[in-house]
Amino acid sequence: MLVVMQHDASAADVEDVCRTIVEMGYEARPLPGAQRTAVGLVGNDGRVDASRIEGMAGVAQVIHVTQPYKQVSREWRPENTLVEIAPGVVFGGRDVPVIAGPCSVESEEQILDAAHAVKAAGATALRGGAFKPRSSPYSFQGMGRRGLELLDLARRKTGLAIITEALDVEGASLVAEYADCIQIGARNMQNYSLLRAVGRLRKPVMIKRGPSATITELLLSAEYVLAEGNDQVILCERGLRSFDPLTRNLFDLTAIPVVHRLSHLPIVADPSHGTGLRDKVAPMASAAVAAGADGLMIEVHPRPDRALSDGAQSLYPAQFDELMKQLHAVALAVGRQITPVGAGNVAVSIG
Amino acid sequence: MLVVMQHDASAADVEDVCRTIVEMGYEARPLPGAQRTAVGLVGNDGRVDASRIEGMAGVAQVIHVTQPYKQVSREWRPENTLVEIAPGVVFGGRDVPVIAGPCSVESEEQILDAAHAVKAAGATALRGGAFKPRSSPYSFQGMGRRGLELLDLARRKTGLAIITEALDVEGASLVAEYADCIQIGARNMQNYSLLRAVGRLRKPVMIKRGPSATITELLLSAEYVLAEGNDQVILCERGLRSFDPLTRNLFDLTAIPVVHRLSHLPIVADPSHGTGLRDKVAPMASAAVAAGADGLMIEVHPRPDRALSDGAQSLYPAQFDELMKQLHAVALAVGRQITPVGAGNVAVSIG
Amino acid sequence: MLVVMQHDASAADVEDVCRTIVEMGYEARPLPGAQRTAVGLVGNDGRVDASRIEGMAGVAQVIHVTQPYKQVSREWRPENTLVEIAPGVVFGGRDVPVIAGPCSVESEEQILDAAHAVKAAGATALRGGAFKPRSSPYSFQGMGRRGLELLDLARRKTGLAIITEALDVEGASLVAEYADCIQIGARNMQNYSLLRAVGRLRKPVMIKRGPSATITELLLSAEYVLAEGNDQVILCERGLRSFDPLTRNLFDLTAIPVVHRLSHLPIVADPSHGTGLRDKVAPMASAAVAAGADGLMIEVHPRPDRALSDGAQSLYPAQFDELMKQLHAVALAVGRQITPVGAGNVAVSIG
Amino acid sequence: MLVVMQHDASAADVEDVCRTIVEMGYEARPLPGAQRTAVGLVGNDGRVDASRIEGMAGVAQVIHVTQPYKQVSREWRPENTLVEIAPGVVFGGRDVPVIAGPCSVESEEQILDAAHAVKAAGATALRGGAFKPRSSPYSFQGMGRRGLELLDLARRKTGLAIITEALDVEGASLVAEYADCIQIGARNMQNYSLLRAVGRLRKPVMIKRGPSATITELLLSAEYVLAEGNDQVILCERGLRSFDPLTRNLFDLTAIPVVHRLSHLPIVADPSHGTGLRDKVAPMASAAVAAGADGLMIEVHPRPDRALSDGAQSLYPAQFDELMKQLHAVALAVGRQITPVGAGNVAVSIG
Repeated sequence: MLVVMQHDASAADVEDVCRTIVEMGYEARPLPGAQRTAVGLVGNDGRVDASRIEGMAGVAQVIHVTQPYKQVSREWRPENTLVEIAPGVVFGGRDVPVIAGPCSVESEEQILDAAHAVKAAGATALRGGAFKPRSSPYSFQGMGRRGLELLDLARRKTGLAIITEALDVEGASLVAEYADCIQIGARNMQNYSLLRAVGRLRKPVMIKRGPSATITELLLSAEYVLAEGNDQVILCERGLRSFDPLTRNLFDLTAIPVVHRLSHLPIVADPSHGTGLRDKVAPMASAAVAAGADGLMIEVHPRPDRALSDGAQSLYPAQFDELMKQLHAVALAVGRQITPVGAGNVAVSIG
Repeated sequence: MLVVMQHDASAADVEDVCRTIVEMGYEARPLPGAQRTAVGLVGNDGRVDASRIEGMAGVAQVIHVTQPYKQVSREWRPENTLVEIAPGVVFGGRDVPVIAGPCSVESEEQILDAAHAVKAAGATALRGGAFKPRSSPYSFQGMGRRGLELLDLARRKTGLAIITEALDVEGASLVAEYADCIQIGARNMQNYSLLRAVGRLRKPVMIKRGPSATITELLLSAEYVLAEGNDQVILCERGLRSFDPLTRNLFDLTAIPVVHRLSHLPIVADPSHGTGLRDKVAPMASAAVAAGADGLMIEVHPRPDRALSDGAQSLYPAQFDELMKQLHAVALAVGRQITPVGAGNVAVSIG
Repeated sequence: MLVVMQHDASAADVEDVCRTIVEMGYEARPLPGAQRTAVGLVGNDGRVDASRIEGMAGVAQVIHVTQPYKQVSREWRPENTLVEIAPGVVFGGRDVPVIAGPCSVESEEQILDAAHAVKAAGATALRGGAFKPRSSPYSFQGMGRRGLELLDLARRKTGLAIITEALDVEGASLVAEYADCIQIGARNMQNYSLLRAVGRLRKPVMIKRGPSATITELLLSAEYVLAEGNDQVILCERGLRSFDPLTRNLFDLTAIPVVHRLSHLPIVADPSHGTGLRDKVAPMASAAVAAGADGLMIEVHPRPDRALSDGAQSLYPAQFDELMKQLHAVALAVGRQITPVGAGNVAVSIG
Repeated sequence: MLVVMQHDASAADVEDVCRTIVEMGYEARPLPGAQRTAVGLVGNDGRVDASRIEGMAGVAQVIHVTQPYKQVSREWRPENTLVEIAPGVVFGGRDVPVIAGPCSVESEEQILDAAHAVKAAGATALRGGAFKPRSSPYSFQGMGRRGLELLDLARRKTGLAIITEALDVEGASLVAEYADCIQIGARNMQNYSLLRAVGRLRKPVMIKRGPSATITELLLSAEYVLAEGNDQVILCERGLRSFDPLTRNLFDLTAIPVVHRLSHLPIVADPSHGTGLRDKVAPMASAAVAAGADGLMIEVHPRPDRALSDGAQSLYPAQFDELMKQLHAVALAVGRQITPVGAGNVAVSIG
């Protein structure tokens, strides 16, 4: 950490800062410059609360040199973490698994139709919400436990891995009983009680980036999970809050190479929420793979015009099928491959 | 709701939209225009999921005419809701209560010093976190239940009302035992399990606006609490995510008159988080009162240079004292008054 | 400037950085830390292009310690700059002048009606666009030179100082012939050819902050004018691009105390563009004065429902009159006063 | 246009709105709903100024149904516009031309080295600034006319098409003498005097999206050029203002399919400014092609560590060479091809 003093800071101000740093248990190293003095804090273990110093007399600015996270950083672990949510469905390696399915589980028929359709097109995991976080208390809130049972049924029928969202500590345990991967939604990215809970559950976790979260904050949220002993974490870019009403969100694909540089954790992209518009999903899914995404999450509904939520951004099964063909080509062009169906998925029953 | 069709939408597209609207249980009213047709959806009860129609062939745009919230709206209740968190400490009327205190409860001495200081300067409620949501798992997370006990002690010594944050469903019940008002932090503004839980607790609730939440979303979060039967809700503006590193947040004071127009709920302002910088707190606190804030929440610490969190934005007691004098003058200039100490606070023991 | 090296940067990487700094004509001072090395660049005169170093091998981050501007900074000149655009109409001192008038000059009758009305209510300067920057080429673009002549007429009739916008280098000279202060609009804040041109004109200049400009960028734009020898510059906060459609812009009043700390230049606030909604103008004008604004700019139109532009945010004359009364009270509450009409304005003809 | 009345608007309010619409020359069509009345404005020719009505008594909201632009819209011209800036270098068709070169022209040696290197790697156009818009007046501002002469020399030596920026009306004519395509920078996207000037020049124009411009505003800026009779316009996405300091900008690749839907104009992507970081340029260039970009603009410098500007985001020639190989593969994967060198470039002298 570097404390930059104001142009006109007095010697006493500099001394006060140095004394406070020493009081906090670190070493202070003053660095007089041409125009102003700076004071280096040496020995930062990531726990320094800069705010205490920021407000001191004569201080112009406090600059963080050390990253605030540890276990998620590539400096901590140089090689990629591989997260295998089901046999053969691995995030973080050369393969790129595609997760697809409806926004919400709506009925047995709907989720089975969706599962069969996305499986046929080449997806290896099924998404579908049983517990839905909705801006309005009057919107459809999901089928709850019955939704989880239907996802389990769909898994038994198709062999697809299951990923679904948990909204709170209690729900996380329940979701963990049924799902192969627990999703933490964007609205809960900084729900630390929930992050700690899934950190203790020893199940793969997918954390979606909040709509105005920096990448540093996303990595810190993952750090909560790793700090509890669970390193099976997948990050997910799903679009940021935008000022332009033409799209639902502002899809930040650059987050993919940025995360790859800073962290060993895999990152997937969700072009359905990232754009909010069906006809933008295909080009942006291709773009995500070209940018290096370690997986994709795509909303597909057997009847989007009847969907209880997110109909506008859900693909028709035929569109998804078409898209998968293109994704295979794009993945090869950048030295990856879309995870093939059945690679390690041996436990498929005959539906 | 109005469905705007594309320039080149076919008659069949328009018919499909009308049929779907009818299927959803509403009335469809086509409105041919000079350049394109629109279809009005009549009978919207706030539960329509537009997304289903947005993605249909020939649809250019879906426009929401009805507000998505109900009970929080001024159309539902024209007169201001008054939220009295303790005798004489009323939000939503002519008086403007000031809540002050440290970011976190750190020790008995610290919280009592803070409480006495802010009381002496004219505050009528005490803030202080016992459970702290922190971006990093390695930062100080609060004293927990012991912090609540110390807040209770401070209340008994000073007569100040207590407001403190709950992070999860379990914590909310605990906080409700000790506090006069439960705070929902910005990171949890869309933690719907938590909102529902405090909706059932029948205690005043303060909901802080999330860093990229629209005002509509803030009102919808309040709607979750009202929908459970608790209308004792105070909203709080505390700054939005900004692109300018010179301030911690972008303090949106216009939210105050916007909320006053749309809702009957009171809204307070937190210039400490809103700016993140001690020397900006005083001018922005005055600005908030001039803009019509129904209360203020200000961080004051007996020793900001030793604070475990938010030191840079915490006022010294003498600064807070100075500020309170100015706030009295500004409040009078706009036809309000800062809530006087002891108005109805009769239960003060001699500390 | 501080160059922070990566955790695993080699000694050769550090040497390369040092060598490059020396090549650029500065001194390099390596600072080994517990986790990583940093290299200080000493002697920065504000002209260092960090980008050259940012991309070098082993470099994690380049941190700017020196501010990039000079003449606009309070370190360069500690006392406030006073900008007197007409006798007695001074920005930057204790007085707070109010500029009011319509968005555009539309006709002789309209501008004279507006001028008389705002004068009667206590404004000391008249605004009104003769050249209008409009998003659409098909919108009303202003009356041009005829508009300037009408502003001049209004000045002769009322004694009000005139401020109006210039859109390009050629227009700036023309505006300078008629106006007391040349306005640079938000869209042109980084039109450097125009900034240089007004820097050479020796007329007071008001620079409006761009919709996503940082305060540092605003100050750098002012630096362009000062660098040409013109220090009669007023800054103006008029709202930032927002994600919330409920307001036209996000009015950043904290910019006022931030600018006051960093610069000696006065800053005024424009609550009309800052909010875009008539009923938000009064509370936010009061808030701006409470926050320390050195002036206000408010749209007033004799017949807002017939305005050719910005009708929704223009006050009716009676509303403006009411607002002025409140502004007087708020200014006194914070130790300022609204500039009284006729203070030094002796040259008023009898209209 | 649709005028939504407030819940409690009176019949007189509705009549007033209708009367005003008629006064403005359009037809008013009231549409009573279950909860509120709306009034349709029929006959909108794109020139309606909604603001006048927005502020009327009883009006809740004004909704724009008609797009504010005309000639740039795909409804105006369904087929893609092809912009050929030099023989064989066509934007808007199946081919994807790559423009590459340094941020600024710095010397004869530098620009020729750059030109030969990017030509060898497969670029078909050369970028390089002669006039540079810089935030600080003390930064390098470009070589001016001498820079244009050197670009011309580079064209003669390599056959590459030339694209370079104009900063003002006067400069535009000068640039038009030398360049094959005139670039309007992001800071000047709403410099309407400049847009009109290049509209009259009959040279291809590339308009870069402003850092907080909506896509609608970008299209409206293009409309200024088309309205002057010049339809040879290329749009360019180069990143938006971001709150996350880890990247220079927030690269909005979804703008590509959004523009393709709304407009017939080609859109290229600039991953160098879009990310600001050399190691993010390659993945994001590939992503842009996968998203459907009609061209790429990439900064390449023979010696980035000596660049006078933008060194951190400039590729080394060897990196660019590597990238071009990958771009060829990605383009083919999505049914496009990178424009081959020399397709129609017959006028190459032997350097």
